[in-house]
Amino acid sequence: METVNLAEKFSKFQDYCKPRLIGEVNDFHVKAVKLKGEFLWHHHETEDELFLVVKGTLRMKFRDREAIVREGEFVIVPHGIEHLPVADEEVHIVLFEPGTTLNTGNISNERTVSYLERI
Amino acid sequence: METVNLAEKFSKFQDYCKPRLIGEVNDFHVKAVKLKGEFLWHHHETEDELFLVVKGTLRMKFRDREAIVREGEFVIVPHGIEHLPVADEEVHIVLFEPGTTLNTGNISNERTVSYLERI
Repeated sequence: METVNLAEKFSKFQDYCKPRLIGEVNDFHVKAVKLKGEFLWHHHETEDELFLVVKGTLRMKFRDREAIVREGEFVIVPHGIEHLPVADEEVHIVLFEPGTTLNTGNISNERTVSYLERI
Repeated sequence: METVNLAEKFSKFQDYCKPRLIGEVNDFHVKAVKLKGEFLWHHHETEDELFLVVKGTLRMKFRDREAIVREGEFVIVPHGIEHLPVADEEVHIVLFEPGTTLNTGNISNERTVSYLERI
């Protein structure tokens, strides 16, 4: 029941593509992540994902189009849909998604974050 | 998979205390609500609630203290905890909560919104 300041949370880490846990709402997680460059094509078998941009611009690529998401905007990616998050410049994103969600979805590689640090 | 602009959603309605549906993430709802004045003391039997302030200042009163939540901040109210949202001036809030959540929780009165309009 403490107030969480988003800018303060984002000041606590500088690396990219590694989400941190900043809140839990029942079995859902609220995460903070910084992104710069291309992430990787992936999908989530069962989990929808909400990407809320709090700084910068996110380009969410789908196989047939892309969504531009600016500060104060969000996009929801339904489960099963392949997507590639791209940030031409650093972007700060708040994620809302089921607690079971892995950052790389159906792909398991060196970018997969299996331990979620709480900050 | 369309980009949702929060300011644009909040421009679509002017009344207070009546949440609108602006997104779904699996069985969770994303809602927009404007508040001015005191809401009412209530709790939710099973649902946690996240209140993200995008404009103004929210005072979330609990029985023993209160949390001040400003623009760019959120507070999570766990299920079972009595709370009273208060806005001395108009505040714009994004709610993230299970789809089963009623705005007045355990209280049913004229302020209960049982039909959720999607905007």
